[in-house]
Amino acid sequence: MGKTGIRTVCKVDFDRPASEQPYLHNRWHPDIPFAGIIKDGETVKIECLDWTGGQIKNDDSADDVKNVDLTKVHYLSGPFEVEGAAPGDVLLVEIMDVQPFQDRPWGFTGIFDRRNGGGFLDEIYPSAAKAIWDFEGIYCTSRHIPHVKFAGLIHPGILGCAPSAEVLEKWNKREAELIAANKLDRDVALPPEPLSVHAGSADKDLTEKVGREGARTIPGRPEHGGNCDIKNLSRGSKVYLPVHVPGAKFSVGDLHFSQGDGEISFCGAIEMAGVITINFKVIKNGVADLGLKSPIYIPGPVEPQFGPGRYIYFEGFSVDEAGRQHYMDVTVAYRQTTLRCIEYLRRFGYSDYQIYLLLSCAPVQGHVAGIVDIPNACTTLGLPIDIFDFDISPSAALPVKKMNMGRCAFETGRTEGVACGESGKNSQVSFGGGLTYKE
Amino acid sequence: MGKTGIRTVCKVDFDRPASEQPYLHNRWHPDIPFAGIIKDGETVKIECLDWTGGQIKNDDSADDVKNVDLTKVHYLSGPFEVEGAAPGDVLLVEIMDVQPFQDRPWGFTGIFDRRNGGGFLDEIYPSAAKAIWDFEGIYCTSRHIPHVKFAGLIHPGILGCAPSAEVLEKWNKREAELIAANKLDRDVALPPEPLSVHAGSADKDLTEKVGREGARTIPGRPEHGGNCDIKNLSRGSKVYLPVHVPGAKFSVGDLHFSQGDGEISFCGAIEMAGVITINFKVIKNGVADLGLKSPIYIPGPVEPQFGPGRYIYFEGFSVDEAGRQHYMDVTVAYRQTTLRCIEYLRRFGYSDYQIYLLLSCAPVQGHVAGIVDIPNACTTLGLPIDIFDFDISPSAALPVKKMNMGRCAFETGRTEGVACGESGKNSQVSFGGGLTYKE
Amino acid sequence: MGKTGIRTVCKVDFDRPASEQPYLHNRWHPDIPFAGIIKDGETVKIECLDWTGGQIKNDDSADDVKNVDLTKVHYLSGPFEVEGAAPGDVLLVEIMDVQPFQDRPWGFTGIFDRRNGGGFLDEIYPSAAKAIWDFEGIYCTSRHIPHVKFAGLIHPGILGCAPSAEVLEKWNKREAELIAANKLDRDVALPPEPLSVHAGSADKDLTEKVGREGARTIPGRPEHGGNCDIKNLSRGSKVYLPVHVPGAKFSVGDLHFSQGDGEISFCGAIEMAGVITINFKVIKNGVADLGLKSPIYIPGPVEPQFGPGRYIYFEGFSVDEAGRQHYMDVTVAYRQTTLRCIEYLRRFGYSDYQIYLLLSCAPVQGHVAGIVDIPNACTTLGLPIDIFDFDISPSAALPVKKMNMGRCAFETGRTEGVACGESGKNSQVSFGGGLTYKE
Amino acid sequence: MGKTGIRTVCKVDFDRPASEQPYLHNRWHPDIPFAGIIKDGETVKIECLDWTGGQIKNDDSADDVKNVDLTKVHYLSGPFEVEGAAPGDVLLVEIMDVQPFQDRPWGFTGIFDRRNGGGFLDEIYPSAAKAIWDFEGIYCTSRHIPHVKFAGLIHPGILGCAPSAEVLEKWNKREAELIAANKLDRDVALPPEPLSVHAGSADKDLTEKVGREGARTIPGRPEHGGNCDIKNLSRGSKVYLPVHVPGAKFSVGDLHFSQGDGEISFCGAIEMAGVITINFKVIKNGVADLGLKSPIYIPGPVEPQFGPGRYIYFEGFSVDEAGRQHYMDVTVAYRQTTLRCIEYLRRFGYSDYQIYLLLSCAPVQGHVAGIVDIPNACTTLGLPIDIFDFDISPSAALPVKKMNMGRCAFETGRTEGVACGESGKNSQVSFGGGLTYKE
Repeated sequence: MGKTGIRTVCKVDFDRPASEQPYLHNRWHPDIPFAGIIKDGETVKIECLDWTGGQIKNDDSADDVKNVDLTKVHYLSGPFEVEGAAPGDVLLVEIMDVQPFQDRPWGFTGIFDRRNGGGFLDEIYPSAAKAIWDFEGIYCTSRHIPHVKFAGLIHPGILGCAPSAEVLEKWNKREAELIAANKLDRDVALPPEPLSVHAGSADKDLTEKVGREGARTIPGRPEHGGNCDIKNLSRGSKVYLPVHVPGAKFSVGDLHFSQGDGEISFCGAIEMAGVITINFKVIKNGVADLGLKSPIYIPGPVEPQFGPGRYIYFEGFSVDEAGRQHYMDVTVAYRQTTLRCIEYLRRFGYSDYQIYLLLSCAPVQGHVAGIVDIPNACTTLGLPIDIFDFDISPSAALPVKKMNMGRCAFETGRTEGVACGESGKNSQVSFGGGLTYKE
Repeated sequence: MGKTGIRTVCKVDFDRPASEQPYLHNRWHPDIPFAGIIKDGETVKIECLDWTGGQIKNDDSADDVKNVDLTKVHYLSGPFEVEGAAPGDVLLVEIMDVQPFQDRPWGFTGIFDRRNGGGFLDEIYPSAAKAIWDFEGIYCTSRHIPHVKFAGLIHPGILGCAPSAEVLEKWNKREAELIAANKLDRDVALPPEPLSVHAGSADKDLTEKVGREGARTIPGRPEHGGNCDIKNLSRGSKVYLPVHVPGAKFSVGDLHFSQGDGEISFCGAIEMAGVITINFKVIKNGVADLGLKSPIYIPGPVEPQFGPGRYIYFEGFSVDEAGRQHYMDVTVAYRQTTLRCIEYLRRFGYSDYQIYLLLSCAPVQGHVAGIVDIPNACTTLGLPIDIFDFDISPSAALPVKKMNMGRCAFETGRTEGVACGESGKNSQVSFGGGLTYKE
Repeated sequence: MGKTGIRTVCKVDFDRPASEQPYLHNRWHPDIPFAGIIKDGETVKIECLDWTGGQIKNDDSADDVKNVDLTKVHYLSGPFEVEGAAPGDVLLVEIMDVQPFQDRPWGFTGIFDRRNGGGFLDEIYPSAAKAIWDFEGIYCTSRHIPHVKFAGLIHPGILGCAPSAEVLEKWNKREAELIAANKLDRDVALPPEPLSVHAGSADKDLTEKVGREGARTIPGRPEHGGNCDIKNLSRGSKVYLPVHVPGAKFSVGDLHFSQGDGEISFCGAIEMAGVITINFKVIKNGVADLGLKSPIYIPGPVEPQFGPGRYIYFEGFSVDEAGRQHYMDVTVAYRQTTLRCIEYLRRFGYSDYQIYLLLSCAPVQGHVAGIVDIPNACTTLGLPIDIFDFDISPSAALPVKKMNMGRCAFETGRTEGVACGESGKNSQVSFGGGLTYKE
Repeated sequence: MGKTGIRTVCKVDFDRPASEQPYLHNRWHPDIPFAGIIKDGETVKIECLDWTGGQIKNDDSADDVKNVDLTKVHYLSGPFEVEGAAPGDVLLVEIMDVQPFQDRPWGFTGIFDRRNGGGFLDEIYPSAAKAIWDFEGIYCTSRHIPHVKFAGLIHPGILGCAPSAEVLEKWNKREAELIAANKLDRDVALPPEPLSVHAGSADKDLTEKVGREGARTIPGRPEHGGNCDIKNLSRGSKVYLPVHVPGAKFSVGDLHFSQGDGEISFCGAIEMAGVITINFKVIKNGVADLGLKSPIYIPGPVEPQFGPGRYIYFEGFSVDEAGRQHYMDVTVAYRQTTLRCIEYLRRFGYSDYQIYLLLSCAPVQGHVAGIVDIPNACTTLGLPIDIFDFDISPSAALPVKKMNMGRCAFETGRTEGVACGESGKNSQVSFGGGLTYKE
């Protein structure tokens, strides 16, 4: 006879704080109690909160983004026991589907304030901003970034198995060393943080231990994956995850309706609450048999597809915006690449903040192009032409006519300079020395 | 009535040193004399030498790669005057075709010796190596890397317009500053070099000037493009190039039959001599109208295409092979990603050097995935499954049976340790004085 | 502020006969009362029954298929008034999503008995058969056709606007002429049929009128579309439909989880009940402005995609299975093409009926190749390799080893000859009174 | 050491009549002498004339098309002996490349006069017409159909192995029966024809025999393939051909720079002379092991690709242009589908003849959609949007402004009615009865 429906192993509750829900947790630690059991071979549904645990509202102010409490994020669903999984095995995770909740058909993209989270371009764009996206089936649109519509490349930002005690210790040690050596005027890593720790159904003592030792969820890490934010690890993908503890202790969360390569504004995907459907299989001794030090994955077949000729590619090099030459620095090169795209789109009337938001969440392709031609690394960013409802191609009639693009959400009271495109102030492009970017 | 054939504006001569051919040059300088005139709107053919000017032979020794003279490379075809082009214009270059010479149906991929050129992984793989590729129509194969066949994503590694005197001065200044500040035990940039300078049809005085001032061709640079090594800037692509001098002084060279994102082994594409067919159009005032600080391009429609589910994606993070945590360093992350792929393919019997060569030239996809989750940047590398004639997918029967994969070309006399796959020692790679690479 | 959820304009009831639900109807007629109102520009959800109105069960017998009541099918949802639509306008219908009901994650593919419905190959395969498909997110599998899994190319089989009285009269006249001229030993068209007519909320008199005049829903028709069964008219597609009556009277139904080109077994898609989300826009005077005699559509971006090299293409010509030459008959050619594919897959152990079912519902590509080389039309059918979990490519080791493929559902009591693959007799298929099919 | 260049086994001579060249032939017959020998596993180049053997000129008159001698066409290159091939084997033919001659960078598309060749729409468009296409690398353009540019999906129209005497006899018998039964006012098949027979290097007696018995090359045939005109059987494709005679006797010709599904105008592809590079492999006993009655093929990876959303799909049904209902006739449906596209494009200023030519040769997708919904077969035709340099999408501003599209080549002296789009006469669309098409 036919299969019955698919079992839901984790339900989230929108009327209760995330910190009180026993199937959620916000640290990586091997001792967090199991939140449920999944059979080898089983397909289940797992509900997930958005990554801020509901802190961001569907409104037109970015106050919530500006004041977000970053100790209270990444409430992951799990950890789940997968029957039969043991250290040295590989957990084969097939993402059968990801969907928003039917009655919450919206998500958000945020730019964090430079002093509270920041992002890839925070030295240039230091203020908080927000765009709300409405979902209608496969498509999303935003009242904050008009004339754009695209199909979601929907995926989980985070999935992975719990670290063993040894792996966890290694993480804490190497990140502490980085923090100790830091001379930058900014956080370079996040050490264990007792504040706001949530260890699922752990008791008080265990929760305190997890607070002292548990790894933060912000970075992905080579040994297990975690917060990789890989946009193409989407529906239909098969992920091969190393298992470090008995039962695997698999967790998932941080669902994205869409994301661009880099997720540059940090809160940069279209963040949403939703349901992920996953099939689990255990590959015994898979770590050794596959030579696996970090997860690998094979994408699914239903990515939104544009023809190769329907992208504009921008090029960037490791010469920073002050004109300084860096040595083979791909990070600098990719930052330049994104700035080239902002300058390009600005001409149509969008503000820089609107574009910064858009490049974070739309399915832009960020490629390492050349990485050996000293001193310049070269990266490219492919912007899909067909997500706009007007012609952005360089063959459109020049010069371009600016359109009224409204504005994205900012903090309450902010009135000046928000729509650069309108003021005409930052259509200037200077080949000379310094920074010409303004808010 | 019908058009006649397409005009060839530059012929190369294989029986004469590159340095004696007046239509070639190997520096960027505004004063190098024009090599020919092209009309606005015209399509022409331009012949090009391979990037080493013929130093590398179709044989089974890597001695030529080891001893390559890197002052004698990048003999570009040009510079050509495009009628009507003036500073501030954009030169729209449409790549109608790229083909190897019919009677030279082969190319090469090299790994430079660490002390003479090096490459992205030279601390781990310090020795010279080489693979020769045979072309049959759209496909290439190599006797040095068996069981692999793929269609070329054929493209020019270098194209661009000459810098103005001001732009050139800026380049020299900022790269000199990098060199001055260098504390690494390796070259970080290449200053002007009088040795082996070739300035086309310039007289002796001008040639000396070009030697003193001319920018080296190795790096791409934001103001004009140059050696970008962008694999998808292939047949059918339209490139928008800023014009800095009257007549544009367009040059092209360094043709690649195929390349992977990053071109990691430096001499990493399938390097070849050949013919490029280009259509030229001038867009007056294009730099300002398009807001163009660096070139942009739109790919063509005939890239080899695999389904998204026909790639294995490897993940890498900014934790280096010694276990040290770096802060958001995409370069480190991409290096790790390539190492993950080497470890994976090694199981089938390939030596690490064979794989290093292969990842340099096969159409692998290198993506910036997450670039905001401190401290770990995450990059991915997509390896196409269908370029192998056996099943490399992780779902193939485990453990994998090693095959006899022969060997790539090494320097004469090298006999030990070259084919890791054969020795069974392949979980450990230790060559010469280099870093020992262990799992 | 944010949008609220999407309005559902039509709910279906699984506990009540389709014939009693006022928002459904099973004839095309301009007088069927409106089932609801939709604004110009609005996006709504519309629930739909499966095309048999629930006659087919999730079990392992094809008795229900054999005995299906074909007067009780195609209960369409609607007709809906789209505000402002008038004859001569075009209704732009954008399919935002199609989903099965969460608690009914299954569908069916049937082969009708030759005497009750038949299908494209019914002279060769005259018996009823059935396969049940289970849905898990984007993927489906069937216990009746093992070793196959694919992502749904989900779409509505039927959508269109009601005919005007004039258009309806034209339909009835031309189809009656075909019936009158018929000399074949089978139905060639279906005239209006008073039995089992359902005209939504019409009263008795109107229902009788609709029974006398209303066009049957089986065929698509050029003037409005209707039952086109176009597999790529899927999620994200925009369809341009001519409007013939005030308010458009739009109806939709016959949802398919997947279908192959041709839908060859007639009940051939993966038929399901579900929900379609549609955005409606009215283009005034669109019929004249677009020169529109029949609907046109633009596909969406999320079709499951395989690389071009991941299909095996079969060729067929207008020489029938008895060796008789037909003149440029594409229908004969396509029948031959499907038979070539059946012969090919049979070697792996599948029965012909299993393959016939599979080709009906899997996303096979049916192309008109050459249509001018007298006397042979040539058609091709592309079979995706990657829907199988074993290697079906012609380069797999030969001869092929047969696998145990179980069986599809047949009528109760049928025991012989059903699984050709198992009996070894599969080079000859002979069922009941039908034509004997030999190699 | 490296491979040397690729051997050319057949050179054509443009200064000599095709009928005098011993490596060419224009009939299928087992006794035509071998034109050369190819090793099992070898890759060779084969030069080919265009299918008319040079009858069509690069000029602006269609007189040559109108008066073409159709007994003097399809001079195929071959037949070649493939060493080791025997009846029952399969010849695996991999198309490594197809290229026009460098010094003949042009091709043609023709519409034959209805009384001399005709075509798919000859009852509506009875006159001869022609378009010349210029090649620049991967792209083609035509002075006769302006505002269109596309990349070639380059392929051979004809390839196949010679029939055995038995197979040949079967062909002649079944086609003779069709001719005998013909009641149409047109040729339905072409019997053996002694006039203009060319049997390669055969002597006079053998040539006469071939003239009496040899099968004409126009139709493809199921037993060996032949003139299939499959547009996607392009570069990189692997074709599996049944072998009927010792040595295979493989022939190839009728190269196409591009073609649309159906090749509707008969001389419909972009016909050209050129060079095809093929690798040959013999699969012993392949016919039985693969269950092969007709050729199968697997496409290559370099087809020009547009995104799925970059096509406009037209729908057609088996109701003919006179309003008559046909029973499940895909041929009628596809004719209607092409007419819908002609009506659509006509609005932009193209004449119907220009569009008829364009649909024949541009890479349009012709699909069998629904083939079971009596009485209407439904087919679709996908027109790529991006081959036009202006916006043809239905979302472009309405009503459309006509452009000056010039004219295609017609017979000398024809002056009236040629550019329908300009006269406004056939922008009329009638939903009523009869034919409204005019030249």
